[in-house]
Amino acid sequence: MSEFKNRITVSIYDQHYTIVGQDEPSHIRYVAGLVDERLREISRYNSGLDTSRKAVLTAVNIMDDYVKLKEDYERLLHQLEAEGQKHD
Amino acid sequence: MSEFKNRITVSIYDQHYTIVGQDEPSHIRYVAGLVDERLREISRYNSGLDTSRKAVLTAVNIMDDYVKLKEDYERLLHQLEAEGQKHD
Repeated sequence: MSEFKNRITVSIYDQHYTIVGQDEPSHIRYVAGLVDERLREISRYNSGLDTSRKAVLTAVNIMDDYVKLKEDYERLLHQLEAEGQKHD
Repeated sequence: MSEFKNRITVSIYDQHYTIVGQDEPSHIRYVAGLVDERLREISRYNSGLDTSRKAVLTAVNIMDDYVKLKEDYERLLHQLEAEGQKHD
């Protein structure tokens, strides 16, 4: 992490995007690569959709993963708290 | 969760999408609502972009959240394992 903003150009689904943020360039490239993969995967099964609709469906799928991971995360957090209380 | 597939129509950024999956309709609507919010937020700061680019950037932001939450999740998992070993 740096206090300066990084400005990185990535390619997603054959389009260039300039991403500005405080994250490391390697992190930004990794995240962009994952989105590119997911978009290409959606496209294989929905070739009739335009790019905008494919990208929205990709965002929906990633958000679905996020919400489910968040539930798992909170379950783990409660488990860790209970574990801590058990040995107080 | 049901073994049957649900078929839900949601509205994201004023477009309708039919989402098919085994998740509860309420979960699908919740996830779609979150994506709609994020897409509108991106649009406020990038009004010059077309919808397809806005949607890809939305997907990038959500994936960024996912990757960071995944790191937190794994940190917690290791902590829980260490906690368990401490009291073995």
